[in-house]
Amino acid sequence: MRLRNKPGASEELLSHPNIVIQQPKACKGKWHEIFGNDNPIHIEVGTGKGQFLTGMSQLHPNINYIGIEKYDSVIITALERIQEAGMENFKLLNEDVVHLTEYFSEDEVERVYINFTDPWPKNRHEKRRLTHEGFLKMYEQVLPKNGEIHFKTDNQGLFEYSLHSFSKYGMILNNVSLDLHNSDFEGNVMTEYEEKFSSKGMRIYRCEAQFRG
Amino acid sequence: MRLRNKPGASEELLSHPNIVIQQPKACKGKWHEIFGNDNPIHIEVGTGKGQFLTGMSQLHPNINYIGIEKYDSVIITALERIQEAGMENFKLLNEDVVHLTEYFSEDEVERVYINFTDPWPKNRHEKRRLTHEGFLKMYEQVLPKNGEIHFKTDNQGLFEYSLHSFSKYGMILNNVSLDLHNSDFEGNVMTEYEEKFSSKGMRIYRCEAQFRG
Repeated sequence: MRLRNKPGASEELLSHPNIVIQQPKACKGKWHEIFGNDNPIHIEVGTGKGQFLTGMSQLHPNINYIGIEKYDSVIITALERIQEAGMENFKLLNEDVVHLTEYFSEDEVERVYINFTDPWPKNRHEKRRLTHEGFLKMYEQVLPKNGEIHFKTDNQGLFEYSLHSFSKYGMILNNVSLDLHNSDFEGNVMTEYEEKFSSKGMRIYRCEAQFRG
Repeated sequence: MRLRNKPGASEELLSHPNIVIQQPKACKGKWHEIFGNDNPIHIEVGTGKGQFLTGMSQLHPNINYIGIEKYDSVIITALERIQEAGMENFKLLNEDVVHLTEYFSEDEVERVYINFTDPWPKNRHEKRRLTHEGFLKMYEQVLPKNGEIHFKTDNQGLFEYSLHSFSKYGMILNNVSLDLHNSDFEGNVMTEYEEKFSSKGMRIYRCEAQFRG
């Protein structure tokens, strides 16, 4: 994603603590209290401008969504979307995913979404890919047994790598689609990247990777 | 594959017992004796007309290859190829793969190839797919620990299914390629199907699925 500095973004984010949660370490184990209900919590790591979770939170009012994004200049758009549409089941964390297990307790998250994440194509950057073993360990820690990661990308190399990484970790690959927009998958909510790439005729890859019980 | 009856095929197959091995159950545990060396044994299940193993056996003279194919009318072409090129490291079994474990003892096979196998797209035929759990159990039995299946297909649905099946079985997916002919994979030997489909611009999918130790 091309990042433009947005003057005033970080102040704006700080001024909406009911949506952009501050001090997330203090929230660990208390997310259901924060949402004020016992609905399942689904998170998206690298949520960008929040188009995916905006759509999902409107489609599924009985799920609580948390978008995690470290860049001020993009998450600010997610904040604007939430303010505009007024969803109460969509919160934001302006944080780095590498600290995920400090924000959520065991089993507190029911599902993890990873959409159109940076492919980090160079071998020496492998550990930065959000489907690398190091991240899978974190997701496993906050998910229940048999918890799932739902993963979409347009990047062939990242998808190939991720199939290897998931299977090497012992995960089960369910509902693999090598051409999502020409499949019978229903209820797909598109991200901004997805709209852009699929409109150019590029394939979108998707799978659900499930941890073993 | 469209099967034409070939008059005299079965007699011809029987008349070359040094290439088309008869009574394979009697060969169980004795394949190195039959080849007359201790070289690794690689098998292809559903070998068709044998183009893949013809190429492989010429490229890799220190590997012993066995092609298994139940249809007379196609394996006869593999026999003709072997007679023509004179490879001594390529044998045929005119048998059904469902009896695989009766032909090979534990660890006797070093690698299994599955190329452009029938996708059996209907759900009720799932068990017939050569990447179904029932077949994986058989391959595991004749392979060593960490043994590998090398799998290629043009069929997107079969590849998606197979990624699920392999991972559910606990196998590790290595060197996944979602577009083999536009990848940096070296030493690819094409099957007849592969030549046909890739010349039409269709993608070829490939992966190596490894059993756990």
